[in-house]
Amino acid sequence: MSQEMNEAGKNKKGQELLHTPGGVRDIYGIECARKLAVEKKVHDVIRAYGFRDIETPAFEYFDVFSKERGTVQSKEMFKFFDRGNNTLVLRPDVTPAIARCVAKYCREEQMQIRFCYTGNTFVNTRPYKGKLQEVTQVGAELYNDDTSDADAEMIAIMIECLKTSGLKEFQLEIGHAELFRGLAEEACLDSCQEKKLRDLIASKNFFGVEEFLCETSVPAAIKEIFAKLPELLGDLSECISFVKARTKNARVLGALDRLTKVRDILDIYGVSDYITVDFSMLSKYSYYTGIIFRAYTYGNGEALAAGGRYDGLVGQFGKDAPAIGLAIVINQLMLALERQKLFADAALGGTVLLYPQSVRKQALQLAEKYRKEGLAVQMLRKSSRKDLAVYKEYAKRMDASRLLYLNENGKLEEYMVEALPGGGV
Amino acid sequence: MSQEMNEAGKNKKGQELLHTPGGVRDIYGIECARKLAVEKKVHDVIRAYGFRDIETPAFEYFDVFSKERGTVQSKEMFKFFDRGNNTLVLRPDVTPAIARCVAKYCREEQMQIRFCYTGNTFVNTRPYKGKLQEVTQVGAELYNDDTSDADAEMIAIMIECLKTSGLKEFQLEIGHAELFRGLAEEACLDSCQEKKLRDLIASKNFFGVEEFLCETSVPAAIKEIFAKLPELLGDLSECISFVKARTKNARVLGALDRLTKVRDILDIYGVSDYITVDFSMLSKYSYYTGIIFRAYTYGNGEALAAGGRYDGLVGQFGKDAPAIGLAIVINQLMLALERQKLFADAALGGTVLLYPQSVRKQALQLAEKYRKEGLAVQMLRKSSRKDLAVYKEYAKRMDASRLLYLNENGKLEEYMVEALPGGGV
Repeated sequence: MSQEMNEAGKNKKGQELLHTPGGVRDIYGIECARKLAVEKKVHDVIRAYGFRDIETPAFEYFDVFSKERGTVQSKEMFKFFDRGNNTLVLRPDVTPAIARCVAKYCREEQMQIRFCYTGNTFVNTRPYKGKLQEVTQVGAELYNDDTSDADAEMIAIMIECLKTSGLKEFQLEIGHAELFRGLAEEACLDSCQEKKLRDLIASKNFFGVEEFLCETSVPAAIKEIFAKLPELLGDLSECISFVKARTKNARVLGALDRLTKVRDILDIYGVSDYITVDFSMLSKYSYYTGIIFRAYTYGNGEALAAGGRYDGLVGQFGKDAPAIGLAIVINQLMLALERQKLFADAALGGTVLLYPQSVRKQALQLAEKYRKEGLAVQMLRKSSRKDLAVYKEYAKRMDASRLLYLNENGKLEEYMVEALPGGGV
Repeated sequence: MSQEMNEAGKNKKGQELLHTPGGVRDIYGIECARKLAVEKKVHDVIRAYGFRDIETPAFEYFDVFSKERGTVQSKEMFKFFDRGNNTLVLRPDVTPAIARCVAKYCREEQMQIRFCYTGNTFVNTRPYKGKLQEVTQVGAELYNDDTSDADAEMIAIMIECLKTSGLKEFQLEIGHAELFRGLAEEACLDSCQEKKLRDLIASKNFFGVEEFLCETSVPAAIKEIFAKLPELLGDLSECISFVKARTKNARVLGALDRLTKVRDILDIYGVSDYITVDFSMLSKYSYYTGIIFRAYTYGNGEALAAGGRYDGLVGQFGKDAPAIGLAIVINQLMLALERQKLFADAALGGTVLLYPQSVRKQALQLAEKYRKEGLAVQMLRKSSRKDLAVYKEYAKRMDASRLLYLNENGKLEEYMVEALPGGGV
């Protein structure tokens, strides 16, 4: 085989090697700088509320995320085996992992526990339309506090996180996991019927809901509530009146009472404008037992953030503790900020310091001085065969803001770099 | 089954659920706060040298890390399959992933490219003695620069990272991948013999090296160099004289020349005190082609940081580009800082703001004010059934530095919290 063919073969092989698996991607350049900045902003907000950082492993025993836990479905997890042939999964959700930690490390604590994290989650969905299998979440979990104050605080934190990220227009939809459960109980549905109805509502197929209810012997008043569900959003008091006039189910009334209390506290936070109630809201996580909430903005179909109360989950790990959590899905938030042109920065910036070998010492000292002042300085030894113009073009490609040239005589020449449209690497 | 038995069953199940797989662990409390602080310090140093952040997926196609690449062995990777039955691996090493990115996204760039990252790597070793399978690395990769300036800069950056983390006493061992390869070439060893010799040297079994060489027809001068290897460390000039008197192999002489140049530049950086040369140094990564370096401190057997030049790796992905990289192993660095008692912080700190429901509004405003001033404030609604003393004890357990109590009359009472020895959650 000739050298050329070898080269061609290598390049072909190289081409094949370039791709990431479907559903995951590389993030670099200005996008990566922005992502890290957004993560930090959101994380800082959460920490300001007294949450303390925790890191759990990227993979756990499957049992931590099994069906009983009520997180994503088994078929949507990445699974593999350890050397003892136990099934491991890449964590599809951080909440059960931290619930495990609370049961293990805070077994005796009966009062508030606050944990927060930045971490990636992995969901093995069929890759399509750019749907990501690995996303970064920044989240918070509050344990041992079953008050409406805790509910309202978590909702207020989510709003502050989104505002601080730079997002301007968004809505938090608030529901309650007990609304559907109470209504289903009142309707005396069997578990199969309940599942069907839940799926219909979750997919917003309200014609289907009506059709389904026609075939059942659900009491008329409850049928009216289900039929009205798509309209039970917006003003809380109106929604409550409608439902209260039609059922005295304790779980439903409890949920309505809780929603009212939380709404009143959120008024004090001054964030009511961001909030809509949605009585038809359901979560894909069945571990939620109380208030649930999700944030949306225009142009993004998927939620930017989600949260809810899950008073039964920690108990599955051996410690009874009420809990409420929230997670900001950084990748979704990034998409929204990008589409809405809300990123203020235009360039990566930084200084390129060019020097010929003869003034290396001076150049190193200069770079050190600038770095101490907080500047990012990239050192670049000038090749005698290359013209200064080459380096000016380079600094532009690198999206730097300044080119400094310490010339052979030890004189410093400064050139501002005009930004390339769209930004560089 | 009685309720009691159910409960017992659940608790037993809960116990089983509490554990992480062998080789990975949870990090929380002051340890987690310290870890994130160390990561940030190291990352900030690297960014000050003009490196730009990149994130690659936690898993990639196996081919990116296959034997040809020269990273960790296949049997040490966590493998699983995607829906198309392709083999995926949790990345055991970040360097090949970023090399892939450079070949893909910077195909045309002929001048310096600088990438940095914070990310976890996964090595499927047999878990023993607390050896971790998931570690956090902060690293930097510099492409398209084959100068000794680049070599020296990366070594200087590693030293600055370790110093900035708070570490005081450490040594950087420097070697060159071509030293062994040139000597093996000169010794006319076949690949099997070369591998055996490499393994003997890597495990520092120099008696074995001597024994092995006795059985071969290696020229006497080369035998002398191999026999002297354990002593060829410390002073570079002495080591060089010894080797130069015994071989004229071009690869060996090239390596010696390079080490001298890099040493001279490091003198300008003023970091020579941290550096020891080690001619017997080998890397477990076979992709290294030039200078290699590792940082050690007393009390830690494993390297805190490692790096080296790998001029052939990016070419395997279809773009010829010289490269040099470094990675700080955060978990190892944390161990060292802890053992050497170099963490300055003693408590997690923060303020607990206690309030009865009646002054909720005032309490929320107060918390907001403090947060704007940069304080971390945890809100806690006071139960009328609990005494203030209970909350004082709680603040202590939480490792907070202050308890504020906004009482029923809207008066603010302040209590400093004495630290618990060892810190809390």
